[in-house]
Amino acid sequence: MYRKEIKVLDCTVRDGGLINNHNFDLKFVREVYKAVSAAGVDYIELGYKNSKELFSPKEYGPWKFCDDEEINKVVEGIESSTKISVMADVGRVKLDDVKPASESPVDMIRVACYTKDIDKAIYMVNNFNEKGYETTINIMAISKDLGHNLDEALHQVEGESKADVIYILDSFGSLYQENIKELAKRYKKIVKTKEIGFHGHNHQQLAFSNTIEAIINNVNYVDATVYGIGRAAGNCPLELLLGFLKNPKFDIRPILDLISKELVPLREKMEWGYIIPYAISGMLNEHPKLAMALRNSKDKENYREFYDKILNAEL
Amino acid sequence: MYRKEIKVLDCTVRDGGLINNHNFDLKFVREVYKAVSAAGVDYIELGYKNSKELFSPKEYGPWKFCDDEEINKVVEGIESSTKISVMADVGRVKLDDVKPASESPVDMIRVACYTKDIDKAIYMVNNFNEKGYETTINIMAISKDLGHNLDEALHQVEGESKADVIYILDSFGSLYQENIKELAKRYKKIVKTKEIGFHGHNHQQLAFSNTIEAIINNVNYVDATVYGIGRAAGNCPLELLLGFLKNPKFDIRPILDLISKELVPLREKMEWGYIIPYAISGMLNEHPKLAMALRNSKDKENYREFYDKILNAEL
Repeated sequence: MYRKEIKVLDCTVRDGGLINNHNFDLKFVREVYKAVSAAGVDYIELGYKNSKELFSPKEYGPWKFCDDEEINKVVEGIESSTKISVMADVGRVKLDDVKPASESPVDMIRVACYTKDIDKAIYMVNNFNEKGYETTINIMAISKDLGHNLDEALHQVEGESKADVIYILDSFGSLYQENIKELAKRYKKIVKTKEIGFHGHNHQQLAFSNTIEAIINNVNYVDATVYGIGRAAGNCPLELLLGFLKNPKFDIRPILDLISKELVPLREKMEWGYIIPYAISGMLNEHPKLAMALRNSKDKENYREFYDKILNAEL
Repeated sequence: MYRKEIKVLDCTVRDGGLINNHNFDLKFVREVYKAVSAAGVDYIELGYKNSKELFSPKEYGPWKFCDDEEINKVVEGIESSTKISVMADVGRVKLDDVKPASESPVDMIRVACYTKDIDKAIYMVNNFNEKGYETTINIMAISKDLGHNLDEALHQVEGESKADVIYILDSFGSLYQENIKELAKRYKKIVKTKEIGFHGHNHQQLAFSNTIEAIINNVNYVDATVYGIGRAAGNCPLELLLGFLKNPKFDIRPILDLISKELVPLREKMEWGYIIPYAISGMLNEHPKLAMALRNSKDKENYREFYDKILNAEL
């Protein structure tokens, strides 16, 4: 598949950071940035732009806050045309903390929200847009909210926001390719003047195929992470996506190197990937937090009981 | 997805046996049979029907030969309506060794071949059919053989064979969902009077999504293995497939139990799943044997060099 409009965003450090409270050390983050840049990936997302008044820097690592000074340490001395992205959750960022884009290493801010917060998300996005950033709106957990609220949010995004991209998110890894096809058409029908993006989760081993399905249906912004790292089952593996995309600007080799040297050893210390409680969360369309709690308990391999509890809403 | 014609075949013991020379012990095979039966799966495949004149029972375990007496030990005392299948490779089985179906615990024989061997496969299938078995023809490695040979083989299957089912095989895990859609239509157009089947490999995490795509495109026989066990990256995970199929005859719980008790511990001893050299084989449409050799060498994590060697045909 080659379409020059396709943009790949690597969110290894951001989504992977959800496993370790955003505590990756500077060396690791620089290695990821170096490899992703050499691979020709369009964007890299490093973490969240959270207020230190809401979250303690003692409890969370630097990528929970993404101070410009920390990002400058990542990019220093590395040749790159990869743009820098950070994520902002509705209600967790002080807008005054965000400097104009011309004074910041950040190129893009992605605002994550639920449909109920769409007004707040649009307010934030328009503020960031005025400051010179590229922006996206990422509506989460839509697999639980596929009715009128979603259409209304999409109409507002189209009519009121200055966002460049609106993302389809499969937050629980519960969507199948037919759902992705329908959603891509639905988003495009309402949000006519913006690009559509897709961010998958791999609970049912469908993040890559759903990303392909999104691309087939004219989605141009797609997220992936190296070796599929990310919360719970993780995300679409970047190496598979680059193997699929035929755009000659991409080179898979630096990513293969990074996996050998950094991700395989890291996987020994941090858990993500195909793990049955996450698969169960996906097939039952539930948030993975209960499965994550199970994995930290003595019942971590007790799959059948977990399935019955989720099914009977006993958790 | 619910369509009463859909038949699920579990090939845990057969495809998993390719990792350990078909040496699963009787207890494990009985546990799989018990769980698969309780889950309502239609068929279970235990191994190959190979001639002991060609392969030594000293080198290979019982599931390389699938003697009726061994199968009787598996099924003894277990309530089940799951049918038993064995696989036969062209040129590796003595037809006289195969008794009439009425004297055997086996219900179905699946003949695997390349397009060049289609005449031999049809001869075998017709012999088994006359003996009273259900039969299928599984044409391997079609991702390397998508031209006229494949059409000709399909026409022969339709015109000359008594096979009940013709399988689409993604032997190298290299096919994407658009390929599956095209192949399902192509098979159905030529092989009008038989059922179509699909057997995927999970090199690129696409076995499950490709199986869904096959089902959407009227494929009614689908293969899977518990926890995705199988040679190299393995196969479509049975638990995901049962989670997707809405047919009330299926129950995922016994499979979840089996994974907790048997497959998770087994995975500590045997390797399968998402492993980069297998992903590379898939994206470059190559047989996984070179990746399997790499995984048994000191260079097992040297992915970039392996990629370049495969790409430059230096292996």
